[in-house]
Amino acid sequence: MSQAPRDIEQLIDLMARLPGLGPRSARRAVLMLLKKRGAVMAPLARVMAEVAENARDCRFCGNISSAEICEICSDERRATGEICVVEDVADLWAMERGHAFKGRYHVLGGTLSALDAVGPEELRIPVLLDRVREENVTEVILALNATVDGQTTAHYIAEVLENTGVQVTSLAQGVPIGGELDYLDDGTIGAALRARRRF
Amino acid sequence: MSQAPRDIEQLIDLMARLPGLGPRSARRAVLMLLKKRGAVMAPLARVMAEVAENARDCRFCGNISSAEICEICSDERRATGEICVVEDVADLWAMERGHAFKGRYHVLGGTLSALDAVGPEELRIPVLLDRVREENVTEVILALNATVDGQTTAHYIAEVLENTGVQVTSLAQGVPIGGELDYLDDGTIGAALRARRRF
Repeated sequence: MSQAPRDIEQLIDLMARLPGLGPRSARRAVLMLLKKRGAVMAPLARVMAEVAENARDCRFCGNISSAEICEICSDERRATGEICVVEDVADLWAMERGHAFKGRYHVLGGTLSALDAVGPEELRIPVLLDRVREENVTEVILALNATVDGQTTAHYIAEVLENTGVQVTSLAQGVPIGGELDYLDDGTIGAALRARRRF
Repeated sequence: MSQAPRDIEQLIDLMARLPGLGPRSARRAVLMLLKKRGAVMAPLARVMAEVAENARDCRFCGNISSAEICEICSDERRATGEICVVEDVADLWAMERGHAFKGRYHVLGGTLSALDAVGPEELRIPVLLDRVREENVTEVILALNATVDGQTTAHYIAEVLENTGVQVTSLAQGVPIGGELDYLDDGTIGAALRARRRF
């Protein structure tokens, strides 16, 4: 016999696959759930089953939603002329938390990577090109991570869009709000200096 | 609109209640689940719902199981004469991982605590007394944590059992296997010295 009943062990194994939880913390989490079976565990299982059942990728932008077309793409108040390209749904959520962008998104689902055999087809880049041609887009904002892979992908997309006539921009690089120069890396300081503006 | 669809936000909120996960890591965990909707999320939701539905406290020992009487209490190969008293189901699992104890358990569900108003009634101590009287018990092994609350509770139980004629023992205290003296606290070294044995 193992230390816990079989179904509970199976639950611990599945929980241990979550990022941020290992075998030990998964066991601790399951024990907490077992103690709050009615108040937390049952609702969590129910909501998780609902989301697993209903969640799908938006046909246009790749955002996750419970409808075929996501809340943002179906929101008529969002500007149709601007598409913000992000790597991942997490980045889309981060942009939305900023409350600054009022256009629509395009989620790539990753970055180009020769090592992992991720090419333009895997990244919904052809779909982006179709949208730019069909949706009357005037500006594509590249909001990719400031990593090597992110910037490689940004350059590739800029190249692909070159002949479509659409304006391609990217997020500014510089000192983050509340950032202290002493703690910033040299690359950021260099980028902020090069992009300096009249005060 | 919030950053994620409402049902996904609700899932993040529930996940953030798990120990070891905060709001940020809950969001990351949910994103990972959303990416593996079929392979991880749906099975996890199903197993969690099953456990939430079926798990119950064993009528005798308080262990969590999907039956009214847990696997250990209903296992005829386990000795009936020895009861190992633990604070929590987690401690029972830890004892079982040690593969050293072949008797049965009694899960208190916590420790006595004047501050939190936890008295003997809340801790299944009366049930323990009943079991000692009815089950032909010869030894009660106190496997409580070596904390102040754990040891207070151990002393209380030893007192309660004094007139039942049952032998009351507790886990040995000393240097853990693989332990280096240099890293051990003074209390443990003192306890190990006092309990020294002929080599």
